[in-house]
Amino acid sequence: MYQPVEDSSVVLRFARKISRNFSPVWLACIPFAAIITIVWSTAASAQDSAVDAAGQVQIILDTIFLLTSSVLVIFMNAGFGMLEAGFCRQKNAVNILAKNLFVFGVATIAYWAIGYAFMYGDGNTFIGLKGFFFSGSSVPYSGDGSEWYTMDGETQILNFVPESVSFLFQVAFAATAATIVSGAVAERIKFDAFLIFSFLLVAISYPITGHWQWDGEWLSQFGFYDFAGSTVVHSVGGWAALVGAAILGPRLGKYRDGKVNAIPGHNMSIATLGCLILWIGWFGFNPGSQLAADAAVPYIAVTTNLAGAAGAVTATATSWLKDGKPDLSMIINGVLAGLVGITAGCDSVSMLSAVIIGAIAGVLVVYSVAFFDAIKIDDPVGATSVHLVCGIWGTLAVGLFQIDTGLFTGGGIQQLIAQIVGILSIGGFTVAFSFVAWYAISAVLGGIRVDEEEELRGLDISEHGMEAYSGFVKESDVIFSSSSDSEG
Amino acid sequence: MYQPVEDSSVVLRFARKISRNFSPVWLACIPFAAIITIVWSTAASAQDSAVDAAGQVQIILDTIFLLTSSVLVIFMNAGFGMLEAGFCRQKNAVNILAKNLFVFGVATIAYWAIGYAFMYGDGNTFIGLKGFFFSGSSVPYSGDGSEWYTMDGETQILNFVPESVSFLFQVAFAATAATIVSGAVAERIKFDAFLIFSFLLVAISYPITGHWQWDGEWLSQFGFYDFAGSTVVHSVGGWAALVGAAILGPRLGKYRDGKVNAIPGHNMSIATLGCLILWIGWFGFNPGSQLAADAAVPYIAVTTNLAGAAGAVTATATSWLKDGKPDLSMIINGVLAGLVGITAGCDSVSMLSAVIIGAIAGVLVVYSVAFFDAIKIDDPVGATSVHLVCGIWGTLAVGLFQIDTGLFTGGGIQQLIAQIVGILSIGGFTVAFSFVAWYAISAVLGGIRVDEEEELRGLDISEHGMEAYSGFVKESDVIFSSSSDSEG
Amino acid sequence: MYQPVEDSSVVLRFARKISRNFSPVWLACIPFAAIITIVWSTAASAQDSAVDAAGQVQIILDTIFLLTSSVLVIFMNAGFGMLEAGFCRQKNAVNILAKNLFVFGVATIAYWAIGYAFMYGDGNTFIGLKGFFFSGSSVPYSGDGSEWYTMDGETQILNFVPESVSFLFQVAFAATAATIVSGAVAERIKFDAFLIFSFLLVAISYPITGHWQWDGEWLSQFGFYDFAGSTVVHSVGGWAALVGAAILGPRLGKYRDGKVNAIPGHNMSIATLGCLILWIGWFGFNPGSQLAADAAVPYIAVTTNLAGAAGAVTATATSWLKDGKPDLSMIINGVLAGLVGITAGCDSVSMLSAVIIGAIAGVLVVYSVAFFDAIKIDDPVGATSVHLVCGIWGTLAVGLFQIDTGLFTGGGIQQLIAQIVGILSIGGFTVAFSFVAWYAISAVLGGIRVDEEEELRGLDISEHGMEAYSGFVKESDVIFSSSSDSEG
Repeated sequence: MYQPVEDSSVVLRFARKISRNFSPVWLACIPFAAIITIVWSTAASAQDSAVDAAGQVQIILDTIFLLTSSVLVIFMNAGFGMLEAGFCRQKNAVNILAKNLFVFGVATIAYWAIGYAFMYGDGNTFIGLKGFFFSGSSVPYSGDGSEWYTMDGETQILNFVPESVSFLFQVAFAATAATIVSGAVAERIKFDAFLIFSFLLVAISYPITGHWQWDGEWLSQFGFYDFAGSTVVHSVGGWAALVGAAILGPRLGKYRDGKVNAIPGHNMSIATLGCLILWIGWFGFNPGSQLAADAAVPYIAVTTNLAGAAGAVTATATSWLKDGKPDLSMIINGVLAGLVGITAGCDSVSMLSAVIIGAIAGVLVVYSVAFFDAIKIDDPVGATSVHLVCGIWGTLAVGLFQIDTGLFTGGGIQQLIAQIVGILSIGGFTVAFSFVAWYAISAVLGGIRVDEEEELRGLDISEHGMEAYSGFVKESDVIFSSSSDSEG
Repeated sequence: MYQPVEDSSVVLRFARKISRNFSPVWLACIPFAAIITIVWSTAASAQDSAVDAAGQVQIILDTIFLLTSSVLVIFMNAGFGMLEAGFCRQKNAVNILAKNLFVFGVATIAYWAIGYAFMYGDGNTFIGLKGFFFSGSSVPYSGDGSEWYTMDGETQILNFVPESVSFLFQVAFAATAATIVSGAVAERIKFDAFLIFSFLLVAISYPITGHWQWDGEWLSQFGFYDFAGSTVVHSVGGWAALVGAAILGPRLGKYRDGKVNAIPGHNMSIATLGCLILWIGWFGFNPGSQLAADAAVPYIAVTTNLAGAAGAVTATATSWLKDGKPDLSMIINGVLAGLVGITAGCDSVSMLSAVIIGAIAGVLVVYSVAFFDAIKIDDPVGATSVHLVCGIWGTLAVGLFQIDTGLFTGGGIQQLIAQIVGILSIGGFTVAFSFVAWYAISAVLGGIRVDEEEELRGLDISEHGMEAYSGFVKESDVIFSSSSDSEG
Repeated sequence: MYQPVEDSSVVLRFARKISRNFSPVWLACIPFAAIITIVWSTAASAQDSAVDAAGQVQIILDTIFLLTSSVLVIFMNAGFGMLEAGFCRQKNAVNILAKNLFVFGVATIAYWAIGYAFMYGDGNTFIGLKGFFFSGSSVPYSGDGSEWYTMDGETQILNFVPESVSFLFQVAFAATAATIVSGAVAERIKFDAFLIFSFLLVAISYPITGHWQWDGEWLSQFGFYDFAGSTVVHSVGGWAALVGAAILGPRLGKYRDGKVNAIPGHNMSIATLGCLILWIGWFGFNPGSQLAADAAVPYIAVTTNLAGAAGAVTATATSWLKDGKPDLSMIINGVLAGLVGITAGCDSVSMLSAVIIGAIAGVLVVYSVAFFDAIKIDDPVGATSVHLVCGIWGTLAVGLFQIDTGLFTGGGIQQLIAQIVGILSIGGFTVAFSFVAWYAISAVLGGIRVDEEEELRGLDISEHGMEAYSGFVKESDVIFSSSSDSEG
């Protein structure tokens, strides 16, 4: 902003200096030379001012865009909460609602205190080590001018998006990983066991694997590509969920006499609402991962939407063909499968590829749910199928469909190999961490599963001392046997 | 950006040229003339740069605004889903939820593959014919620079809002038209019949009539004005719904022994939630239709909000006076009536006119619901009254209240005539298309209505093999007669 | 934009003038002097253009940001609606849903017609007196150019954010105050009594106290600080709620035989959803109160989120320790307590202070609920504890923790004194107004409470003639006694 003045005074000093040393012949050239110089520097600095002024607005626009995206991602907590609660039985509704609400609080505190430093702080290529409690440069009125406004209101140059909005966006992502776990371990886990695991996942495990990729460390340098987190977020949550569900074992009555007993959810209205909230939340998740408001953002929104739609269509068709009827829970999981699938490559595949990726995810999720039931891993909401299986698929799909680098789109096998390395390294770490964490929690609490009587009665009464739908008559009130009917 | 250099070198060449041909007297003028010229062109180009840089940010701001608006409109799917599900009986809840969720997937694919080309592609004044599967200029990294960034990350000039965000916004609108139909045909239509109709409406009918107006073709040229779609979106959905409801006939037990039997909705909580989601969705629908972030946007938001509020007040008062009690479903429909009513003229009527338009819509919707019952057209959620009747009213209201051109606001009868032509032409086409489509679907599927036993039992079990509220005792479980009680 | 031309012609005229009066020696200086002058003014004006062009975009960005924030705050109506409905019994659900939906309509009309003028119109330091029906400068196409675009589409300079968006943001805030009341008086108030009170609160009381502070009048000049409304919005709603609840008396059966009987809510799913909607709504409420898109916005979002999370954690822990189990309704109220607590100081306390403020609010709310029960003021949803008690706490916390001015953060006692004056003056006025209003309404309507039979039966049937969950069997259908069971 101050360059015009300085530059022209330099020119003036230079003009005065040479006027003392040169002949009139030369002097005649001075005005002309001076004009050229001044005009040039003025044009450049005016242009710089223009760019500066517009650049400031752009940075604020980036900031507001990232804030809006953060809000949409935070809203996904409501989506997960309604989806998971709706897919479970009413006797466990309070418990799963409490988990999904509280986990965002726990995740916020955990990521603020520890996780953000591990993920984005300076450190080594394996872990960040600075920035605990996210203090420092974002304190208001700090007056250093590089990032903030000063106390007296004088505006300073803003050179980059304030770190506070990046932090908020990352908090929202970290919480997502924890929320995914909640559905898979539902209806039988102890409330405190889940809370401790969530804290550990968000404070330690998710940030470490995230650091490898999104802080530009070894995995990113290796060539792994995961734009918005098919692997970094969704499969991390999915692996942790899978380990938890495997250790917990299935719900009572789920697998009996060699058969899989469907345990229907208690409220498909809120489950559907949850799915639609998640759908719009993804418009924060994927486009927001561009981390700037630019021309790529709406393209990402379109591929995201197409993949979700394609997943809905193919999951519905698959379930219709497979079971004779279009299952609403499969439509819901198909949408989510498509959305998880496109997350890794939403910025860098063609729209047609986005449709294909979503369509395949929609088929995959239906068979994946059947597969996990076949191996008797009981996941009440299908979180493992949606987030782990389709997260892996979406990550691989980058290696197949990414423009110029995918196997089917002009590239070789390298990108696909990098994708596999990323899946395995992040998956391996998360599985190992989850095993240790679940068993450590189990050792401390004397088990992570509620006892049989509590499970039959429902976690709402046993863990929270209240019920979700007071005043309504439930089947378990009418049929006083402890048979399978009361569990349905 | 590069003009300063070019312009000044032109000036320099010119200066050198004239210096060879003119006397010293003239030459003395050159510096001065040159200065004027250079400064002038520099000032102009610096100013251009300023506008360019700021203009780029404005285009990105337009883009982000349109994306945010799209997300709000897409969220309306959740609004319609909750509203329609809540207004229906619990035995059909899964069905209507599945329809409202799946229809956005179907609409996305239909509009991407076909509809967008018919609506906005080059063609003739009746239909667009290019741009199927929305490929072309929006593929990322296309490198043409006019619309997108190049592969190496070098930023190019962005001359207009990326087409991808316009596409997303239009997808959301197209899906709205289909979702409106869903409510009117609820509780008795076959799931596949609805899906096929939705596909046809979004792929063919809605885009053709939309092309006439919003792609600037014959109807728009005739002077018809429909800012955000009272006719182009809402009445199109409303006409298709009316034809569907008329062909299907009323639900069993609705009109019996010459009386209208109220069939109450099963969940007013989610219906109210749906209404409030729709209310905020309209802040994407109407302001977003400005298609740019400018000073008109908040004005549109205010007229929209005032009309919704006025509709709520008058519908409540009307229902209170008419039936002695304030009916919640009428408060809900009053809000929506006001919002639909203001949609056509939200940018170009005064705030007081907005209140009047909303207030009249709120009265209209109450009597319209009674009218359709009187002629035995059974619309479980009142979609026809809200979207068709108030859509027509809102379109006419432009001819009455639009600043400068309305009959009551300084204009003559011309605008009103144009509005009537628009209502009749779009309505006529949609009705004709809907008749053909519904009968064709009926011929292919052997009817579009489920059989009597399935309807009595509920579509959730018969069409989807599941129930919405597992574990709760329903009246139909307790009272085992097949009388009207079990339908309530 | 036109300054370059004007400025240079001034210079030219000046050059011509001095050329007639001075010797050739002096004349030789003219080109040089002229260059300096022109370049200087050109640089300045080009820079002004740059700032102008970018400044225009910034103003539009401010506008869109404020609109988006308004939408989030308006969405809080859905949050309050779901929260309050879920916390009440199903027999009163329609009533509370109707109140929460309708109140936004009433508030919009009341604030448009009267409230906005009282709050922000020109007047005296006690009340504004101009701008009823918010007409005037925001009529579209007004052509004055200072605020709006002209009819022919020619863009004019936009000097500030259009008043329409400020109005919309304020409407949303005003409605919040009214909605808070709704929960505390639930399950026993007459529908019309609540509506009239809401109208009066939004039209008269809230705007007057708001005028003192947010229109920069006496209270603001005294040094009171309430950034986003812990006092101006939340405690105003809380005081009005407290007075209403006290006058109404407790629900039948709440306090019996010297014991507090818990009356559980009927739908914890929608209550939890409501809490999460409110959480994201607060990202409009607090950051939007900056009234401009700048670098402070995300900081405010982070402190807001940290306080909500901390409130969740401490309320859960407190309830767990106090009652042996983590109560979901206390997790919900803990989140809201933290959010209300941070509202006054969200822009000007450190992140650590935000955590402390939220944490203390989370503890306070648990004991406050117990306290109000102890003094037999029955608030079915805990609105008084959340909005009044934590509103006061948050306002005091500014005096304790505000950077540089807080008692614990480098300042003296002055800020704390100003905070106490603000709490007392706004509280005093609101309590007095509420007493007069409730008693006046009672006199006109013959009481503000429904009669005993209606209360026992539920307000849904008695006030609205419908039930919220038709088709479900309720406990009251099965157990035909009028004992406490049927009230549960």
